[in-house]
Amino acid sequence: MSIMAPAADKKLTGLVAATFTPITSQGEINLSVIGPYIDYLKEKQGVNNVFVNGTTGESMSLSVEERKLLAEEWCRKAKGKMDQVIVHVGCLSLKDTQELAHHAAQIEADGIAVIAPSFFKPSSADVLRTFLQEVASAAPTLPFYYYHVPSVTGVNVNVRELIEGIEKVIPSFRGVKFTGSDLMDLGQCISYIPPHWSVLYGIDEQLLGALVMGVHGAVGSTYNYVGCHVNKLISAFETGDLVQARTIQFKIQELVSFAIKLGFDVGVNKQLMNELSGLDLGPPRLPVMTCPAARALAIKQKYDMRREQEPSELLDLGQQWAAETSLVGLEQL
Amino acid sequence: MSIMAPAADKKLTGLVAATFTPITSQGEINLSVIGPYIDYLKEKQGVNNVFVNGTTGESMSLSVEERKLLAEEWCRKAKGKMDQVIVHVGCLSLKDTQELAHHAAQIEADGIAVIAPSFFKPSSADVLRTFLQEVASAAPTLPFYYYHVPSVTGVNVNVRELIEGIEKVIPSFRGVKFTGSDLMDLGQCISYIPPHWSVLYGIDEQLLGALVMGVHGAVGSTYNYVGCHVNKLISAFETGDLVQARTIQFKIQELVSFAIKLGFDVGVNKQLMNELSGLDLGPPRLPVMTCPAARALAIKQKYDMRREQEPSELLDLGQQWAAETSLVGLEQL
Amino acid sequence: MSIMAPAADKKLTGLVAATFTPITSQGEINLSVIGPYIDYLKEKQGVNNVFVNGTTGESMSLSVEERKLLAEEWCRKAKGKMDQVIVHVGCLSLKDTQELAHHAAQIEADGIAVIAPSFFKPSSADVLRTFLQEVASAAPTLPFYYYHVPSVTGVNVNVRELIEGIEKVIPSFRGVKFTGSDLMDLGQCISYIPPHWSVLYGIDEQLLGALVMGVHGAVGSTYNYVGCHVNKLISAFETGDLVQARTIQFKIQELVSFAIKLGFDVGVNKQLMNELSGLDLGPPRLPVMTCPAARALAIKQKYDMRREQEPSELLDLGQQWAAETSLVGLEQL
Amino acid sequence: MSIMAPAADKKLTGLVAATFTPITSQGEINLSVIGPYIDYLKEKQGVNNVFVNGTTGESMSLSVEERKLLAEEWCRKAKGKMDQVIVHVGCLSLKDTQELAHHAAQIEADGIAVIAPSFFKPSSADVLRTFLQEVASAAPTLPFYYYHVPSVTGVNVNVRELIEGIEKVIPSFRGVKFTGSDLMDLGQCISYIPPHWSVLYGIDEQLLGALVMGVHGAVGSTYNYVGCHVNKLISAFETGDLVQARTIQFKIQELVSFAIKLGFDVGVNKQLMNELSGLDLGPPRLPVMTCPAARALAIKQKYDMRREQEPSELLDLGQQWAAETSLVGLEQL
Repeated sequence: MSIMAPAADKKLTGLVAATFTPITSQGEINLSVIGPYIDYLKEKQGVNNVFVNGTTGESMSLSVEERKLLAEEWCRKAKGKMDQVIVHVGCLSLKDTQELAHHAAQIEADGIAVIAPSFFKPSSADVLRTFLQEVASAAPTLPFYYYHVPSVTGVNVNVRELIEGIEKVIPSFRGVKFTGSDLMDLGQCISYIPPHWSVLYGIDEQLLGALVMGVHGAVGSTYNYVGCHVNKLISAFETGDLVQARTIQFKIQELVSFAIKLGFDVGVNKQLMNELSGLDLGPPRLPVMTCPAARALAIKQKYDMRREQEPSELLDLGQQWAAETSLVGLEQL
Repeated sequence: MSIMAPAADKKLTGLVAATFTPITSQGEINLSVIGPYIDYLKEKQGVNNVFVNGTTGESMSLSVEERKLLAEEWCRKAKGKMDQVIVHVGCLSLKDTQELAHHAAQIEADGIAVIAPSFFKPSSADVLRTFLQEVASAAPTLPFYYYHVPSVTGVNVNVRELIEGIEKVIPSFRGVKFTGSDLMDLGQCISYIPPHWSVLYGIDEQLLGALVMGVHGAVGSTYNYVGCHVNKLISAFETGDLVQARTIQFKIQELVSFAIKLGFDVGVNKQLMNELSGLDLGPPRLPVMTCPAARALAIKQKYDMRREQEPSELLDLGQQWAAETSLVGLEQL
Repeated sequence: MSIMAPAADKKLTGLVAATFTPITSQGEINLSVIGPYIDYLKEKQGVNNVFVNGTTGESMSLSVEERKLLAEEWCRKAKGKMDQVIVHVGCLSLKDTQELAHHAAQIEADGIAVIAPSFFKPSSADVLRTFLQEVASAAPTLPFYYYHVPSVTGVNVNVRELIEGIEKVIPSFRGVKFTGSDLMDLGQCISYIPPHWSVLYGIDEQLLGALVMGVHGAVGSTYNYVGCHVNKLISAFETGDLVQARTIQFKIQELVSFAIKLGFDVGVNKQLMNELSGLDLGPPRLPVMTCPAARALAIKQKYDMRREQEPSELLDLGQQWAAETSLVGLEQL
Repeated sequence: MSIMAPAADKKLTGLVAATFTPITSQGEINLSVIGPYIDYLKEKQGVNNVFVNGTTGESMSLSVEERKLLAEEWCRKAKGKMDQVIVHVGCLSLKDTQELAHHAAQIEADGIAVIAPSFFKPSSADVLRTFLQEVASAAPTLPFYYYHVPSVTGVNVNVRELIEGIEKVIPSFRGVKFTGSDLMDLGQCISYIPPHWSVLYGIDEQLLGALVMGVHGAVGSTYNYVGCHVNKLISAFETGDLVQARTIQFKIQELVSFAIKLGFDVGVNKQLMNELSGLDLGPPRLPVMTCPAARALAIKQKYDMRREQEPSELLDLGQQWAAETSLVGLEQL
């Protein structure tokens, strides 16, 4: 089955945008942008799923009440437009997490995802599984995803070990958002899970390496603005055109590594999205700092860079040495 | 000035117990234990200050509402009994932190403390200072302490750099709970601050190394049950009796390193406190696991161990090699 | 060009075995095994290149003199049998490294590789480049490879940055042994280098993710005993049979993750090789411990495991959930 | 016993300079400076012990032969002048380490020290003990010290566990150079060892915290140029003048933290020593870079800074807030 196939059985596949949270200039959540945001993702990026209130959405900087209001608006506005709205409900506090999980069921989200608690770190896969089970019990029928992001949480449990027999304690378990670079653990998860579960990859700049391992989709912040290109990358991969798939992946890597050199955090990412999408998502919240204007513009310029070469050269990897491929922006691929 | 002197000017000095949060067997907060807990600390341990809703208090596993209820009860019951109640108000969300800071002022806490946000980690001392400033602005007259604990938060800013000129943006700034092993940074803080600020050390098992640098007090979880011994350690240090000070410090190190070998987290610590104090503080909350009964008992046994030697031997460091000092428990010192 | 194409222009491609160093039971190097070892690699594993005196070869536990004797014997015995012998010459001491580089040229090795010095860690890509340049100057015409293995050295320079313009200071530069999980850096290297350079991947258990990025070959210790299977994996990948490529990769991951659970270091790896190859490579040297016999046997058993299923089931990823694929060993694929 | 007492029984106590290795401008070892270097240490710094070929001495960048030549010259020139010459013999290779240990016995060094091998890291205290035992067997009568420096080696074994019963396998064991910030482990070592062993502390900028725990001496690179001040610090500590002891410690911290901000590695340290001592120790070796001249001069200026205050103010910690203590250099204390 293509990872871009329609989700008739609601199996979560294809691209999922990890959405930014719209904030007003006064620092309050801004629900009015969510409708246009959904239209933009669908029409401009060809992205049909969203992962809301996650890391990109600064959920940890929001109050429980704000998270509810946001989740509700995303579900309401996405109805009939998006394939799936996955609401991330993870908090440090189990109680708050359960409350958000229960709320997600009430507002008819398509699924919930939970990050590992990162202050008191679960001491083993067993402890983490127990924590997740307690969350799932508050929304027992809602598809449940574990959100694995060890570089942020410091919780580096082996996911294959975590999901061993997990359907016995979490019958609603449906998969993993895997944001890690351990492709052995990733591969062992893919090889283990039943057909109706999904493993979605979360490191956008190395998606190709996860596609070849067999992931069913991808969740990431850059799909907010390079989703249309990554859809082409996936198509190229699926039709066996590896040269084209690599070319797109390398351009995205070039963009991301350029951004990283300048300092690339959620604040910069959000401002870049403002520049590229035309939406007004506002500033981030402390402790994420507002991005200096020049930095987002420099990255946007990298994104827009006009091509100076013939397409044939671009695709001929053997000639990349001579050519300065960095002069070709993503829009030109 | 002795670090045990009365806090006439409300300068925070001496021992401060980082309190556990009482929880019922049903998992709800248990306010009824707080009164007896305060009496126990004062009478049995000689500890006259508390640091509530901190790491030991599992604040990150509590809802905002629960934290308010707890803080209120601690302030109410401590009135006239404790010298100072410091309420930790740090959360991942600035909004929630501000709400708790404002609440702490309303309930007349003696001060607030704020941990560095650990999910989105402040990228520099400047960013962290800005975050702290926003918190302080919600309770501008309340003595404000930064809670430095890089091993838990992963936020390893240089504290000396953080506090440079901090009184200009946080006029209520009064000091640091320094839970780190970088004694150079610690020393530079002590050497820098004005006389009415406090630097309180937070690694109980190496307090002596911080006392010699000149800290004004100590905040820690073990002071809930070894406070009476540590008061003796401090007195010995202040009167120049280093042999006695070391002897007590080494016994505490022996206890803590024994506990660490068995697995020592907040759950184990809480159960040990239950055993030693006779109070019913209940279990911890997930993701902290309830301590296996045998583990807390083994540690308690280490604590209680009967002495087999004469006191003179004990204090003669030159003879420790032959003697098996581990047969002497803390209670016998 | 296929990554398995003959290396007419001596471009380093395909599988490269990172060889173990034969040691006698008395702890001395055992040159007599090298001839049979080469025959075994060629005939039993279809591996035609070796990377000698690397991490697997415990070079850091050898004296300079021992390394010379070993390199010489490998070059002598490989003549006419192996495509290329790459001699790793990296040491902590630049002087020793230069001496070994010069020696490698004298014995007509096909190339040299150098690991980053890991005691005093180069503080930047520039410093590392300067160090490598000094080494290369001792063997200026010998193809030169940088060996990137940040998890071992702690030197995590960006390789793309390191190789920027490196041909100007090291005209003999020919590529990188990339043993890291940062596929963005890997991709940016592949996209940058000229056609006659090579990027060889070094994490055997996730090779497929690097193949799709376009690596030209792979260097690893497991190719000593799963080389024949990985040759099939590469062929399957090159002909577009991803199901077969994944199946082999997942089996190798299963083997490696099983080994890791039991404790998998160079000592265990060497003993496993002894068991699987029938060669007598002897024990490792301290501080690597000799592998407990039972451990290597348990891993060998995992390797040999008899199949209980039909091949069609094996390749149908959709049915892996029901089937216990771990019952199928590598030999049966 | 005072830690500055004469070492009648050869117990290693007091200050030990971790020496730099003199290198000519052509990059060769420069034995001619060693004699004057010893005189300088004795006369200008009051330092009577040396730790040669350690980290500061860039031993890992030297060949085995160079290390022998250096050790020999240090022993020859120190005779009758220094109390003890401890030769560090640790290498990655056990064979080389044994050769150097044997050589140290031949040249009549007063003791040897061994760092944990840091490439293949010992997987436990037991493995490390076995490694050390093999080294000691090559020089069985020479006093043996373990050199613990986890921040450099990445080998963070518990030293207390390592030395448990170590005299049974290494009868010549005499102590530890403890360069770590875990004062619990340090304290447990001090409390455990017999009277004729020594624990020497290795983090110069927080020596006071180790003195109070009971260390018997200190080994460090800064004692090459602040040894005279640290001798005063130790005297002040021993006579109970903590204010004076702290004042000196804080000034050293100020110097070191200033240097760290500018970038402080062995290369900078060596150039600073050149400037302060007037000796010509030359440049470091790659991968340590030669220090930019301006950097060493800026640090030297910090060292020399003229005092602008009365001594009484200096010692009144209560007034440090108002005063700018950084205007007082070490030479003025």
